[in-house]
Amino acid sequence: MPVKKNLPLILITNDDGITAPGIKNLVEAVKDLGRVVVVAPDKPQSGMGHAVTIGHPLRMHKADVFEGAEAWQTSGTPVDCVKLAVDKILHRKPDLCLSGINHGANHSINVIYSGTMSAAMEASIEGIPSIGFSLLDFSLDADFTASRFYVRTIVSALLKRKLDKHLLLNVNIPAVSQSLIKGVKVCKQAYAKYEEDFDERKDPSGKKYYWLSGKFINFDKGKDTDVWALAHNYVSVVPVQFDLTNYTLKKQLEKNNPFK
Amino acid sequence: MPVKKNLPLILITNDDGITAPGIKNLVEAVKDLGRVVVVAPDKPQSGMGHAVTIGHPLRMHKADVFEGAEAWQTSGTPVDCVKLAVDKILHRKPDLCLSGINHGANHSINVIYSGTMSAAMEASIEGIPSIGFSLLDFSLDADFTASRFYVRTIVSALLKRKLDKHLLLNVNIPAVSQSLIKGVKVCKQAYAKYEEDFDERKDPSGKKYYWLSGKFINFDKGKDTDVWALAHNYVSVVPVQFDLTNYTLKKQLEKNNPFK
Repeated sequence: MPVKKNLPLILITNDDGITAPGIKNLVEAVKDLGRVVVVAPDKPQSGMGHAVTIGHPLRMHKADVFEGAEAWQTSGTPVDCVKLAVDKILHRKPDLCLSGINHGANHSINVIYSGTMSAAMEASIEGIPSIGFSLLDFSLDADFTASRFYVRTIVSALLKRKLDKHLLLNVNIPAVSQSLIKGVKVCKQAYAKYEEDFDERKDPSGKKYYWLSGKFINFDKGKDTDVWALAHNYVSVVPVQFDLTNYTLKKQLEKNNPFK
Repeated sequence: MPVKKNLPLILITNDDGITAPGIKNLVEAVKDLGRVVVVAPDKPQSGMGHAVTIGHPLRMHKADVFEGAEAWQTSGTPVDCVKLAVDKILHRKPDLCLSGINHGANHSINVIYSGTMSAAMEASIEGIPSIGFSLLDFSLDADFTASRFYVRTIVSALLKRKLDKHLLLNVNIPAVSQSLIKGVKVCKQAYAKYEEDFDERKDPSGKKYYWLSGKFINFDKGKDTDVWALAHNYVSVVPVQFDLTNYTLKKQLEKNNPFK
């Protein structure tokens, strides 16, 4: 296909794998806004967090999956995909990196476990403005109509601005029809966690194994959180950073260093 | 072994696997400070970030590896180990979780990729005070003498205080002999990154594959960073948080919401 010379270069990845409906909808939503190149895992990689493949070689192949967008599949994690894209496919930093649309919520503490958000964060570390999108519906038959609309709204708005190279947004979209969505709300990450719970089962030879399940519990009653926004039918936008320093605790420990 | 009733319960894990010298040295350094229970991966899991096993069952077995400490090995990631420990082994939250001693640096941006730090962060999310320890030496023959001393210094100091349940520290130890270490310095995470670089090779059947390599580059010239402290022979202690909200950018976007 002819290279669109003056349009922004948009890298797209995800963690549900290159054949997931979510990434197809993401490509559809933005493909006329720039030159879109997809580099995504060849299989689902949910819950991979910021995993990167160190001890194994990676494979990468061209994939004929999307209309109007060049695509590559890799054997790596979402973070590997971003690294491979910059170093081996694009040979430059793209102007924007989009990750998703994830099948399932990545609000609140999910940002830590999410392969979708880790890919976006990797791009941000690289100095590429980046956005992760998630729809609060795990189903492969999820309706992405509203998601496509809000992806386009947000990406178009950002492409008109001069972006900070480390800009990183975690966008979640409620699983309701578009007419019920009240708008886009800038939020903080809610303080929530999973109550761990492993199902203990026995395999056919009588040996124990464990399946992770877990109940999501929100401890954060604030109205400025992503969990609140989503429960009230807003699209939530949480600006994210990769400096994990706890400056409050740093100040306390400096004042009274207990390790001297 | 008899249960030490009034001593704190200390959970130990790592990402280099239960047979790595680093975890053995960690157990040795603290085993008389509490009742120590080890739950660690049965194989190396470096670079796993905050990966959690969703689509597969996990295995877990008792392991007779350490003198004076109960131990279990699991087929899961470091984060899985913490979740399994709390739910299936301890049946309560431990008083402290220690992760490491990692073979290799986890300063600056490594905190994002590190399985060692992700295990510690998972504990912190659970409300368990937690510390990740790393020695700046990848070698399996690394000398852990100074590390054991500083692990013990830091853990002893913390056990004397009432700890915030989300306390989370990233401790890195320079790879020099103990006499050269100048002390313990509370720091911020340096802004640094890896310049991605994949080695492109061909397998015996002529197909391409890619090995990740990468050069670590520190952009942060501050003297309050972990990279600076380690280069000047200090043990670095970075307080870490799991709220990734970028509050500065949040304020900017709220003031002038471009997505309305």
